[in-house]
Formats: sequence, C-alpha cells, structure tokens
Amino acid sequence: MHHEAPSCPAVAVVGATGYAGQELVRLLARHPAATLEVAMASSATDQPRRLPRLRRLWEGEVRPFSVDAVSGKKDAAVLALPDAAAAEVGPALVRAGLRVFDLSGAFRLREPGPRARHYPGSPADWPEGTVYGLSELNRQAVATARLVACPGCYPTAALLAVAPLARAGLIEGDVIVDAKSGLSGAGKTPSERTHFSENHGSVAAYGLFAHRHTAEIEQELGCDVTFVPHLVPLDRGILETIYLRVRPGVTPARVAETYEAAYRDAPFVRLTADHLPEIKHVAHTNFCDIGWRLEPGGRRLVLVACLDNLVKGAAGQAIQNLNVAFGLDERAGLL
Amino acid sequence: MHHEAPSCPAVAVVGATGYAGQELVRLLARHPAATLEVAMASSATDQPRRLPRLRRLWEGEVRPFSVDAVSGKKDAAVLALPDAAAAEVGPALVRAGLRVFDLSGAFRLREPGPRARHYPGSPADWPEGTVYGLSELNRQAVATARLVACPGCYPTAALLAVAPLARAGLIEGDVIVDAKSGLSGAGKTPSERTHFSENHGSVAAYGLFAHRHTAEIEQELGCDVTFVPHLVPLDRGILETIYLRVRPGVTPARVAETYEAAYRDAPFVRLTADHLPEIKHVAHTNFCDIGWRLEPGGRRLVLVACLDNLVKGAAGQAIQNLNVAFGLDERAGLL
Amino acid sequence: MHHEAPSCPAVAVVGATGYAGQELVRLLARHPAATLEVAMASSATDQPRRLPRLRRLWEGEVRPFSVDAVSGKKDAAVLALPDAAAAEVGPALVRAGLRVFDLSGAFRLREPGPRARHYPGSPADWPEGTVYGLSELNRQAVATARLVACPGCYPTAALLAVAPLARAGLIEGDVIVDAKSGLSGAGKTPSERTHFSENHGSVAAYGLFAHRHTAEIEQELGCDVTFVPHLVPLDRGILETIYLRVRPGVTPARVAETYEAAYRDAPFVRLTADHLPEIKHVAHTNFCDIGWRLEPGGRRLVLVACLDNLVKGAAGQAIQNLNVAFGLDERAGLL
Amino acid sequence: MHHEAPSCPAVAVVGATGYAGQELVRLLARHPAATLEVAMASSATDQPRRLPRLRRLWEGEVRPFSVDAVSGKKDAAVLALPDAAAAEVGPALVRAGLRVFDLSGAFRLREPGPRARHYPGSPADWPEGTVYGLSELNRQAVATARLVACPGCYPTAALLAVAPLARAGLIEGDVIVDAKSGLSGAGKTPSERTHFSENHGSVAAYGLFAHRHTAEIEQELGCDVTFVPHLVPLDRGILETIYLRVRPGVTPARVAETYEAAYRDAPFVRLTADHLPEIKHVAHTNFCDIGWRLEPGGRRLVLVACLDNLVKGAAGQAIQNLNVAFGLDERAGLL
Repeated sequence: MHHEAPSCPAVAVVGATGYAGQELVRLLARHPAATLEVAMASSATDQPRRLPRLRRLWEGEVRPFSVDAVSGKKDAAVLALPDAAAAEVGPALVRAGLRVFDLSGAFRLREPGPRARHYPGSPADWPEGTVYGLSELNRQAVATARLVACPGCYPTAALLAVAPLARAGLIEGDVIVDAKSGLSGAGKTPSERTHFSENHGSVAAYGLFAHRHTAEIEQELGCDVTFVPHLVPLDRGILETIYLRVRPGVTPARVAETYEAAYRDAPFVRLTADHLPEIKHVAHTNFCDIGWRLEPGGRRLVLVACLDNLVKGAAGQAIQNLNVAFGLDERAGLL
Repeated sequence: MHHEAPSCPAVAVVGATGYAGQELVRLLARHPAATLEVAMASSATDQPRRLPRLRRLWEGEVRPFSVDAVSGKKDAAVLALPDAAAAEVGPALVRAGLRVFDLSGAFRLREPGPRARHYPGSPADWPEGTVYGLSELNRQAVATARLVACPGCYPTAALLAVAPLARAGLIEGDVIVDAKSGLSGAGKTPSERTHFSENHGSVAAYGLFAHRHTAEIEQELGCDVTFVPHLVPLDRGILETIYLRVRPGVTPARVAETYEAAYRDAPFVRLTADHLPEIKHVAHTNFCDIGWRLEPGGRRLVLVACLDNLVKGAAGQAIQNLNVAFGLDERAGLL
Repeated sequence: MHHEAPSCPAVAVVGATGYAGQELVRLLARHPAATLEVAMASSATDQPRRLPRLRRLWEGEVRPFSVDAVSGKKDAAVLALPDAAAAEVGPALVRAGLRVFDLSGAFRLREPGPRARHYPGSPADWPEGTVYGLSELNRQAVATARLVACPGCYPTAALLAVAPLARAGLIEGDVIVDAKSGLSGAGKTPSERTHFSENHGSVAAYGLFAHRHTAEIEQELGCDVTFVPHLVPLDRGILETIYLRVRPGVTPARVAETYEAAYRDAPFVRLTADHLPEIKHVAHTNFCDIGWRLEPGGRRLVLVACLDNLVKGAAGQAIQNLNVAFGLDERAGLL
Repeated sequence: MHHEAPSCPAVAVVGATGYAGQELVRLLARHPAATLEVAMASSATDQPRRLPRLRRLWEGEVRPFSVDAVSGKKDAAVLALPDAAAAEVGPALVRAGLRVFDLSGAFRLREPGPRARHYPGSPADWPEGTVYGLSELNRQAVATARLVACPGCYPTAALLAVAPLARAGLIEGDVIVDAKSGLSGAGKTPSERTHFSENHGSVAAYGLFAHRHTAEIEQELGCDVTFVPHLVPLDRGILETIYLRVRPGVTPARVAETYEAAYRDAPFVRLTADHLPEIKHVAHTNFCDIGWRLEPGGRRLVLVACLDNLVKGAAGQAIQNLNVAFGLDERAGLL
C-alpha cells in the first residue's frame, strides 16, 4: 500500500529556476514536515547553479536534471516544467514509485481530444491514479493519488468561486470570467510581452477565445465559459470578476450559506462576502479570497476571487496537495 | 443667433486645479483656434495660485472663482467642478450668454428621478439647450447646444463601443461592462483609497451595483447594464471589456462594417479589430481605441475599448465638443 | 533580576493598525517562541476593530489603548506609535516592569539638543537602560536593555553598510547617502504626497538637509553625513547608494574581509559583494543585503544596501531585538 | 554654402521602430516647420511595416534601410541606430549632403582613445563639422554643424545641471551623479533585465565604474565624475541627484544668479530652485527641470535634475538641434 505515508516525505523539485520553481524551493526549505532533498533544473544540460535570491533560506545547488537522481530515495516530486517535459517525466517518476505533483497542463484535461488540442505534447493515456488536484474540491482523491495535476492559477480562482454554487444548483446559464493577472504569470522568459515598458501604465487583454484554461474551467464546471485574461501592471497575483445568473428565488443569504458550508474546513479559502477582496491582501500567501454581491432585486450575481498565482496558483497549491497526500496538516509550511 | 461662432472663442476654465482642470489648461494653452482667457479655482475663497507643473506652457494665475469675472467678454466656459457646484454655476453662465461645457454629472441624466437619486444637488429642471455631449454620437446636437453635459469616462468608452452595434440592431440581451481604471480617475483628493501603498501590486473592484455611471450608460443604450469598475495600479487610462450577445446570423464582417460606417468621419476613434487595444497606446491622447472578437461558431461578442480618462474621458472631450460647437476643426488642439 | 527571561515572553503590540503595526501582528502571530498577548490601537478612544487582511493569521481584536491592559502579565511591549505618544508610553511601561521595544524616534538621539530639535515631544531624560537597538552592532547592550530604541529604516541600512568600515578605520572624510524608498515608508495617513497618481511614474527627492535620520546616522558614525532620501514608485523597501573614500592602500580584499568579520554571526546580513543587491530580493524579509565596489585604481568606494522598511527597518528589527533580549534564537519568527 | 537652411527641411528618420525612433516619428509628424519625408528601419533586410501605435498621427510605412533612399532630396537625417551602424551611416549621409543628427554614442567622445574603448565600432576619424550637440551649451556650433552627436540622456541632465556652475568657477573637487532611470532607457530588446517582474517593486544599481556615459560627462566637465545609474520601476524619465562642493563664499543667491544667467534664453530648462523637480512633471515633454539646495552654513551643494529620456534625452533633443541647425524656432514641434 503506497498510502502509508512517510512521516516526513523527502521531496525533489524539478524545474527549480523559474518563478514557480523558486517559490517551491523557498516554501519547501522551511516546511516543518517535509524535506527538500534535491532541486533540479529543467534539463540535463543545465549547469549546476545557486539561487542567490534564496541565500540563507536555501543554500543548496540546483543540479542538472536526471531521472535517476530524482527517484533514488525520494517519496515525492514536484514538477515545474514545460508541458511536454512534464508529460514525459511525470509518468516515469510514478513508475519509479514516487508520488508526483505536476504544475504543468499535461495532465489536467481528461478528454483526449481537448488534451491533444491544447497540450500537443501530452500523453494519449494518463497514468493510473492521476487526479485533478484542487484540494478544496477534491481532497479525498488527492489523498490517494499517484499523480496530481495541479490546476492552473486562473482555473483555481474560478473553480473555487463557482463550483460550490454550481454543485448546489444555484446558478443557470453560462459563466463569464474576466481575469486580471500580474506579469509573473507570463513566466520568466523575456519577450516583448513581458518587457517592463510595454506593461507599465497599461492593461491588455489576450488569448481571447483561445486560452487553454477555458477548457479546464469548462471541464470542471460542466457549463459554457467565456474567459478573458488581461495583463495588469503588477508582479504577483490574479483577480477574477465572474458574472453569473442565479436561479429564481436565490437570495444573498442562500449564497452565503452555500459558501460557508463548502469551505468550513478549508484553511486557505477566506470568504469576504460583500467586502470585496483585493490582490494585495493575498499576495505572498496561499489564500484564495472570495467575495460576491447579488444584484438588488435581480438575478445577476457577481463574484470576485483572487489569489497569488505563484503560491495558491502554483507552488503553494502543489505543497497543499502534498500535505493532503502524505497525511500532514494541510497548512504545513504554508502559513 | 448665438450660433454665429466667433472665429477664435475666448474660453474660461472653472475648477483649474484638479487633474482634469490642469489638463484643460494644458490643452487650451496651446489650442490654435481658441484662447484660454482665464482659469479659476473651484471656489471664491481659494487663494490665487500658479500651476508650477505647467510652467513654460501656461504662465497665468488661477484666480478665485467669480461669476462676473467668468462671464465678461467670454464666449465659453469649461467646468471641472463638483456636481453640486456645477449644477449652480452652469445655468448661471448660460444665462450670462456663454456656452457651457460641463465635466460634472449634474446634467447627464435626463430623467429627474435617476438624476435626483444619483446627483442629489442637481437641478430639477435643465436649462434649455442642454445636450448629452458625446461628439461622435451626437455631433449635430452639440453644434447648437447651450450647455453640453460631457459624459463620464466610463460611459464614453462603453457607449462608443456598444452604441453603433445597438443602433444597427446587431445585439440582444443585456450588456456587461468590466472596467479597469487608473487612479487619476479617483480624483486628486487624498484618501486611503488613493494611497499609493493600497494600490501598488493590487487590483480592487468597487461600486458594485451602485456606480452612477451605470444609469448613464443604460440611459443612452436603452438596455440593462451590469457595470463593475476596478482600480488597477496605473495613473491614466481606462480599459473596458464588454460582454454581449449578437443576434443569430451576425458575422465578424457585419460587426466590422457597422463600426467602420459609424466612425468613418470620427477622428478620435481608432478601430483595431482583432488586434485588441491597450491603455498604453491611448494614454495622453484623445483617442478611443476599440477592438472586438466574435466567438468562433457562437454568438458571444467581446469588445475591448480604452481611452485616457483625463483627455478623451474629460478635458479632451470638452474641447472636442467646444470645437464642434464653435465650428472649428474637431481635432484642433487635440493631436 | 529582570534578565531571567521567560521562556516564551508574552508580548503586547501598541499601535497595531498602521503599516508597521500590522506587520508586527503578522510576525508575532506566527512566532514560535513568543506570544502575542494583546494588540492595541494608538489611542484610548479608538473603537475595537479587527484586521481583516490578517484573517486566518490572527483573529484577535485591536483594543483601545490602556496602560493597565498592556502591563498586566506582559513581559514586553512593542510600540509602533507617533513619537510624542511613544515618549510618554515607553517610560510608563518600563516602570510597570515591561521591556519595551520602541519603533519611534523618541529615544534614538542621545544628546538632548538634537533630540529636542528633531523630536520636540521627546523626554528630556531617558529612562535608565535605554539603548540604541541595532542588533548587529549592539547585540550585548540589547540583551540587557530595558528600553530599546529601534533605529529608523534609513539609518539601519546606512549603519549596517558603513559602520564596520568606519570601526576598522578604512574610510576618511564625509559620507553621502542617496536613499530610495517605497511609499509605505511615508506611513498610512493619506496626503497629496502619498497619492498614487503623484508617485506613479515619478521619483522625488525630499527632506534635503532637514531629515531627522541624518542626525541619527551621524550620531552612530561620528562623521559628517549628507543624506538625501527619495520616494520611488514601489510599496515596500529601501535601497541606499553610499559614497565614501577609503584611506590610501585599502584594497577590495580588505573591504571584503572587514565585512565578513563583522557579519560572520549575523543571520540577517547578506553580503553580495560586487553582485549588487536589489530591493526585490529583500522585500518581505528581515534581510539587509550589502554590496560594494571600489573604484579600479582609485579610492572612491560605493556601497549599496537594501532592506524591507517594514520588516528589517521596523517590525522585524523590533522582533529581532526582542529575540536577543529574551535569549531566544535571533532568527525566531523571522525566516 | 550649406547653411542656407531650407525653410521647411525634409527629414529622414533612420531606425524608426525602437522607442526613441517611434518618438521621433511622432514628434516630426506634427512638426509645423519640418517634413517627415521617410522613416526607415535599422537594416536593409527588415520588412516594411506600419507603426500601429501612431495611427492617425502618422500613417506611413517604415521601409527597409537604404542610403540611396535616405539621401535623395532630403535635407537632414536623424539616426536612432546602434552605435556601430551609426558610425557607418552617419558619415555616408554627410557625404551625400545631408545634415545628420545622431542619437548613438559613436561620435560623442572627441578623444580617439576613450572612443575606441567605449564604442569599439566607432570611426577613428570624425567627419569634419562634427559637434557635441547639447543645444543649451553649444548652440552656435550646432547651428553650423554637419553632424551633430546628440548627448546621452544621463549626460544631458548632468551637464545642464553642472556645466553653468563649473564654467562660472563656483565648484571644486569631484562630482557624484546618482541617477535613477525608467526602463525605456534600457531599450526595447527583451532581456531578463527588462522583464516586468524583475523591476516591479525593485530598484537596482548597474554599470558601476563601467558606464560609458561617465566618459562623456567627464569630457564636457573636465573633472572627475563618479556616476552610478539605477533602474527604478517606471517607464519614462530619469532623475539625477548630484553631489558637489562649492568654493568658499559661494551663496545660494550666487548659485541662483548663475543658473538664471545661463538659461535666460533656454526654452526647455526650467529652474525650480528649492522646490525640487520630479520626473512626473517632465515626462512626455522636452523640459529639463533643475533644482538645488546648498547646505545651510556649509559648502555641500545638492542638485536635482530630471528629464524624459525619450524626449529631451533623445528624440526631442535631436529635433531641438535640428531646429537650431535650420534656423527654425528652437521650440518648433516640441511644446
């Protein structure tokens, strides 16, 4: 039985030099109940290097990638790799007996058609024991999974905000998600799109009717989603404003009760009700703050959800899943 | 006949020390076909003062407000005043024979009910010759108006984007406007809401189901509008993402043709089609850029419109109206 | 003997609603070896209130200020108060038997003349056992102090960078400190100076030849200091570029050795040598990063030091001092 | 005689797609007394392209570079090219009879030694009629020059601030220039250094004791200069804080008189005296604002100078020089 979780799992990080990868190292280095055993680069040909920003927090060396070095004596691996690399490495590590927490998109879409379309390098078949790992909505499956596909930052906020209402049958029709994201969400690779001067003092929509996260949100909600992401001039954090209609007779109190029931035991969801959340209050934390307001006398419901894309939207989510999977306190290393 | 426009109208600015007021002074000081005759503060008790930021551009003195000093030998006044002050000053100056261009909300709503609700200090009766002054949609009325109520920055972008489609009967159902605004839109008065540290690295929604601009957009479009403004960490500019449904059979080409017909002679509307506009490209200009994309195989239409809230959303709009009203080149002083 | 430090001191925070005060609450709430016993507002007339941003981190209530409530059964108090209030409250709490860690300027200047000039409300006489609390330079005195005057954020960076060189006799002549600060350093009270729009896209010098921190730096270094602070458009962090001359014969290696000797046991000073430090790498941490470069073939030495003004420059510094004073691990609660 | 300036010179821009190049096109397109005849890319192999951000302001096409196309029937060329390209193109166009205004560093340093060291591709010999073109300090030479080497943005601010005092013999010793620059100064090419996330919320020094602009400032001032540039999180503008010593007996009044005499006829230098200048007030203008403060009772003088690096520090400077060279109003097209 692989679920006899070790009391203090030994963890490998693969892809430790990007923004999400460094956040993983930072969080795991001070995790009270897991050990960062090794941090590796994305490729076998990268030179060994230090992470100067993390000095005094983690003094190790990021080593070139090698499956053998990851798997020996490790209990778990967290992957912060490009989709195609994760598609290959993930199953290999599962075969080597590790539990894998993957931040890429390679294993998020269950249907082979959309998966091949949105993530061309992803495998035709999923490893057995693969689950979509949004701890709050899927805690039991995560607890026993072999490979946890961690949701993207945009779907995390959208699903945490909408899923409880959808499951409770409170809403009808389609869903519009207007998302505002900081630039760290665009990754560390320099491009004209990530140049400081192109974003300072600006806001830009992108990926209209073409963003891969739309499929992921639709898969989990089972309804039509219009998803429009925007780049806003900040570094860390996303905020989503979500437009829905409630069924006739749904009251503000009903909405509030539904959320409270859903997140009573969720340590990282904070319900702010009609005091709408702001990115600043979740940056550098693993919280997802959710607020809402129902149109007075009407059926239009507006939700606002925000989180830090590198923590709850990436590294923190992976560690939260790891905590659940190994039977640790879900909050360990994340407060 | 008051419409024998003087060849070079003499203009007074009232309320010259706020963000929009200073922009007015800056633009009028270099206007090739109008003369900035006097700039006044919002109140009769303000001390005379200079505008050091405009040195070498305008060397005059902002004087205490006085109706007499405004009206003598002036042809026009532009008001950048609080709503209640504008409600009083505007009609007085019209009676004194000036043509008035008002940036406040006092004269924007035609129905007395909503007007009293949203702008408590506004007059029960409008002066004769009052028009809603969005030059592009209402050019002829502006040309002969006595008092031009210039639209707010949010309605300007929303109406320029939606009105041509609504007039052409291309859309159905309600309209969702998700607006992102820089902080200069919140005015110059310091508050916790405008503190640098509260906005840096953050995004916040505000005024949900309560913003006065909703009534203004609904008045002009004649349909239900859900309008959610957000503060984003930049100074000048707004961007609106607008969610609509088109009637069956409407094609991308039809949308494009409709816009092109509407704005063929509009010097300040730039159609960017599926190359979506960005705030950076309109900041410090009088342009409103509009892009759009129709869901492939579907009826969901997304519009993106942006403008500089202090120029096209305030001072530039007033001057554009002034140009139209006095028979000048609509672009004078604005390129 | 008051130095038999309790194993887990009970701490009161006074002035818990400003930026530094909230950071204190956040840090103490998760401190592994001290207990946040009570958080109080700056005044006795403030209403009790929650700190919504800290929900799930600290769920307590900020209570109106009262000396009695602070002193009962507490071991220590951290004060984040205006200078005049701290001047009064600090000695009262010392008399009540608490050890006091004060973030204000009231007790920083030893000479009564400068103290009265720069901090008019400060007491003519200092309580016995008052020390200037820069842990790295003054660890032993802090260990037994009754009242610790925590340095300002600007002096902290300047002194950590310059003092080791000055003590080792490596430099001569005066010192120029060009400081760049984020806006949280200006405090939470709204003003034109802290308005978002006045700072976005801008840089401004202020307080030239008049800033109170100059006296504090000169007191500790014993030489002439020209100190020019600037506001730069960011929230948290300061960076100082410091211009000095070394004595003839001083080499880069000598500078490096001097720093390494000085900070061998300092957990929060990171020496980056000629890889110059950046604010981003210290934001949200208690680190002070210091880099330097000596003019090739010359005697001009440039130092660059940076830290987070709310952590190492305020709340973190107080807690570091508290750790030292109570014999805890100096790093407790700060990594 | 080449100095019979045409009444309305026909101008070519070479290198029109970078930040400075686009600013040149924008300014020349609305210049009242010069004609933008052609805009060219930096290389002969670039595809023809539009500049969508300038739509309605300039509707032309940026063409591949060709010396022939530049020189035919043009009076002047403004070059916004890499140093090595400018070193080649500049003299060729002078030989073709054009007057050339060069924004690169290729022709700024008079001494062959420093020139070869700092600008390896620059020519060993300068074309006859080459001048260092800071209009305010060198107006007469610019008026008759064949090739005008426009100063870099950092030297422009430093020289405008220091040169009048140096020429009047008011200062002694060396000069320290602490410069803060927005990111557009780093150019349009994406790199890790220009990534939004690396700069948001940060400040970083760079190029210590190695920046080429040091040689340029020293050449023009004739004294030792310590120059330390920093990147600050904004787009457009630089601010320099300059540390000097005045000779014994120099008073604040003497400093003020010296500046006023120097800049009485300079339309783009604004003296703000002890009201220190801020970047925000010069952004998007051709102004250089200069303020200063003399240590009370001492000899330490601090100057603060700021300008927009793309206007007064690049495109605006070239056009100001062009205005001077062709006998136009120095302000034409720049207010």
